[in-house]
Order: sequence, then C-alpha cells, then structure tokens
Amino acid sequence: MKEKILREKILYKGKIVNVKEVEVELPNGKIGIREVVEHPGAVAILPINHDGSIFFVKQYRMCTGEILLEIPAGKLNFGEDPYQCAIRELEEEIGYRAKRLELIHSFYTSPGITNEVLYLFEAGNLEKTKVNPEEDEFLEIISLRREDVERLLKENKIKDAKTLIAIYYYLAGRHRL
Amino acid sequence: MKEKILREKILYKGKIVNVKEVEVELPNGKIGIREVVEHPGAVAILPINHDGSIFFVKQYRMCTGEILLEIPAGKLNFGEDPYQCAIRELEEEIGYRAKRLELIHSFYTSPGITNEVLYLFEAGNLEKTKVNPEEDEFLEIISLRREDVERLLKENKIKDAKTLIAIYYYLAGRHRL
Repeated sequence: MKEKILREKILYKGKIVNVKEVEVELPNGKIGIREVVEHPGAVAILPINHDGSIFFVKQYRMCTGEILLEIPAGKLNFGEDPYQCAIRELEEEIGYRAKRLELIHSFYTSPGITNEVLYLFEAGNLEKTKVNPEEDEFLEIISLRREDVERLLKENKIKDAKTLIAIYYYLAGRHRL
Repeated sequence: MKEKILREKILYKGKIVNVKEVEVELPNGKIGIREVVEHPGAVAILPINHDGSIFFVKQYRMCTGEILLEIPAGKLNFGEDPYQCAIRELEEEIGYRAKRLELIHSFYTSPGITNEVLYLFEAGNLEKTKVNPEEDEFLEIISLRREDVERLLKENKIKDAKTLIAIYYYLAGRHRL
C-alpha cells in the first residue's frame, strides 16, 4: 500500500508552511505526483476550570474570513516539546497556568495534504497569571458552561476540527481532570 | 478583530492546493503577512451498517508516511455539491449507496493555515454496489464493531481529525441513522 519516493522538490518556502512536490512510485508500479504542505505541528489545549466550565478564544482567522470559537492553540516552535508548548500557549492566550496537563490525542489535521500533527491536551487545576499574546494575535477569551457548549455544538457554531474533538471528548465525560 | 486585506499574491499553484500570501492591516493598524493554503474543500462520511458497525478505509498517506485508519472521504470536484460528493465518494471507496445521508458538521480542518472546509455526513440504510477507486487510490475496507472502535480510540490508533470527530459522535450515541 506504501508509495516509494522517487524525487522531491520544494516549490514554496513560506513563513509557516512549505510546499513540496513528490514524485512517487504507486503500489501498481505507476508514477504519481503528491503535494505535501509541510507544517511544524501545533498544540491545542482543553482548559477545564474549577467549576467545570471551559475556556475558549474567539479569533479572526484570515484563511477563513470568519471569527471562530476555538480552544487555545498554537504552533510548535522549532524543536519545541509539545508539552512545553501547551504550557506556553495556555499562558499566552488565556493567562492561566495548568498544574495538570495531559495529552488526550495526537492526530493529523488533514492527512491528504499536510504532515501537520496536532497534540491535544486537557488542562486542569488552573491558576490565574497574565495573558501575553503574540504581537499579531488578537483574541477574546470566553468561559462557557457545559450546557452552553452543548447548545453551541447543536447550533453548529463550532466550526473548528480540533475544538470539535475536544468538546465531544469533554461532553462524553471522558476528561480526567 | 477583523483584518483588512491590502494585497494578495498567489505564490504556488498546485494540483490540489494553491498558496497565497496576503498582506493585511491588523486591528492595531500594523501590517501583517498571512499565508493561506487554498483548498477546494472535502467531504467525509460515517457509514453505519445495519448491525451498527462502521466502515473504515485503511490508506497510505504520503504526507504522513503512515497507513491511517480513516472514514471514507474525498475532495470536492470544482462546483460539486457536498451531498452529491458524499454519495460519489462512499460508492467509490467502499462500494455502498446510502439511502439516508445527513450532514453532521461542517468545519475547518486547520483554520490557521487553510480555508479547507470538511463536510461530515452520516450514512445509513446502506446497499451494496461496487467499489470504484480513483486511479491513484489504494484502499483497504474494514468494518468495525462499536467495541473495536472504542478500543482503537483508547489505544490512540485513530490519528485523523475528521475520523476522531465522527467516532466521538458515534460513540456518544448522537447518530440519527
């Protein structure tokens, strides 16, 4: 089922992503061309408050032309450990430190086009510190109770894949913190 | 919170994706550069068999270097209706026609880098027809019972975002078909 890489060429080098075209030998011996969007990977955090409510961020996403409601998330710096990245992003985006942080899942966001892996954590025992967003980030922090999350899910107001995974996990009572 | 587009340039034109660089005015008046991976959108289908089992496909994903277990999915053709695309992809990939097909969610796979929208359907009342994969697709079809799906989830064997959303939805008993 595997494909043998014959040649690859980087055709675009960007700030966050690169694109390479890869010539492969398919399982039937034919030649195919695959496009790969290279991405450094990212983390997302489901932050569960003492009262069971969840912190979200509202953020304009240029790629989509919409303001989206998402759980806090951010790209891995070069060589950064996902766990350390999750601690950093949680503090930067919502101004909390988590005394407990556990990896729930790691998954590919869109395996047909990119190698982007997302590490999804749940965070509990939260302690207030101070938000510290990146220079080009403009976020609104929102805390929602379980019933509000359930309502937003039913109304299709959650339009982000990682956030859907996190809240299905949370609503199913699978969280450990 | 919105960003005003000042200029945009297509820097890569590929078979499936394009990449454009967009110069934007940020909410604080400063200038920022955003990269957008343009994608035509895709569908995925949670196919629920008469006995409650689910059809999956195993597939080598060049971008990830791994064989992944996913629900059936595929890209939208230019101008194609997601509902029609879901019917087509279900038949192509697993050889079934669905008498019932309902949209569960539509979401962005990775809104920080791409405009890719994924339309997730559930499919029921399945009737056997004939598989008809695309020329460069090599799939293995697998049917799994609820308890197997639950076990694979716990063992972190599900590494694809859309598939995680679909199976959390299914395991929570939210499916209508």
